Amino acid sequence: MKLHGYFRSSASYRVRIALNLKGLSVEHLPHHLRRGEQRDPSYLAINPQGLVPALQDDAGAVLTQSLAIIEWLEETHPEPPLLPIEPWRRAKVRAFAMVLACDTHPVQNLKVLARLRQLGLPDDQVTGWAAWANQEGLSACEVLIAGEAGPFCFGDTAGLADLCLVPQLANARRFGVDLTAFPRLLEAEMAAKHLKAFADAAPERQSDAE
Amino acid sequence: MKLHGYFRSSASYRVRIALNLKGLSVEHLPHHLRRGEQRDPSYLAINPQGLVPALQDDAGAVLTQSLAIIEWLEETHPEPPLLPIEPWRRAKVRAFAMVLACDTHPVQNLKVLARLRQLGLPDDQVTGWAAWANQEGLSACEVLIAGEAGPFCFGDTAGLADLCLVPQLANARRFGVDLTAFPRLLEAEMAAKHLKAFADAAPERQSDAE
Repeated sequence: MKLHGYFRSSASYRVRIALNLKGLSVEHLPHHLRRGEQRDPSYLAINPQGLVPALQDDAGAVLTQSLAIIEWLEETHPEPPLLPIEPWRRAKVRAFAMVLACDTHPVQNLKVLARLRQLGLPDDQVTGWAAWANQEGLSACEVLIAGEAGPFCFGDTAGLADLCLVPQLANARRFGVDLTAFPRLLEAEMAAKHLKAFADAAPERQSDAE
Repeated sequence: MKLHGYFRSSASYRVRIALNLKGLSVEHLPHHLRRGEQRDPSYLAINPQGLVPALQDDAGAVLTQSLAIIEWLEETHPEPPLLPIEPWRRAKVRAFAMVLACDTHPVQNLKVLARLRQLGLPDDQVTGWAAWANQEGLSACEVLIAGEAGPFCFGDTAGLADLCLVPQLANARRFGVDLTAFPRLLEAEMAAKHLKAFADAAPERQSDAE
């Protein structure tokens, strides 16, 4: 299998962590988003959205969307599980993940920020926009797990919530968000970063890192 | 069970369709988003994101995020299924749903458009932004199902993809998007709209419709 990605893409980072947690190795094919390589016709033939990640099997078939890829990994490689067993608990974990993957990251991704610049917003307002999106999402996430046992987001095992959280916190720092209001999220991040699966997936450890 | 929603919210609309397809009835509790009722402290105690929908069980426990709610419905009420059985096919359907639920709708929801206005963008640029987000997402979706049998998004049964598509097309029309470039999506929409589960979930059929 091949994973089309970009070292700094937080959606690619999620899938890298999931693959590592499952003990699966894939070939990594980087596409340089800041140079626009994701809009190359050869890549659009793989993913018509022009986004990373995309997972490609050995026959060339493609899966897109990080959470869809991760749900597929969970269904086909169930051990170790990334979701709890009980349906309501699974939904709580998925909801946390989606606060970040649906309502936070897409509002501050490169494409959206580029559009804001095209509309004439100055750089400080564009960065402010990205910081706002992160602040909103992380604030909700902090409340969602306030009553959950640690050290990870949901208990004593890293899973779907953690693999969405760690990349999003990296984005938040890049946009200058003050994270001191999120002690529970930082506790989960620290626990996750001690795991090799997370450390090996970090942007700075990828072959295309700059 | 209670569903906190808003007639025009496309995320609420998705869950209404899913409940109808599953043959489940719930109490509908509308929150008027344009009047800011979702930011009332009593609602933020239910959903710290201040977004709809939220599903509340009879003991008061809450699930948020439309796709997490729908996955929970699928796991606890498997018939009729909203996803195919085979994992790769499930991932294809989920990816289609997430192009809309992650990368399209959150970029053009009320909260984001309000923020654009706060930054000084005039109304026509704000509407243009929403149209652009819809155009981008729907263009990718049209390609994703170009090779799939109809009349629904993925074959002869309505499911997760269709219940995300129909509300998004309603948004796209509201923002003036020309839909003639999306014949395959319109075919799926027409098939879905003939089903009572979709018709009964339509915004104009809800008690809080204006």
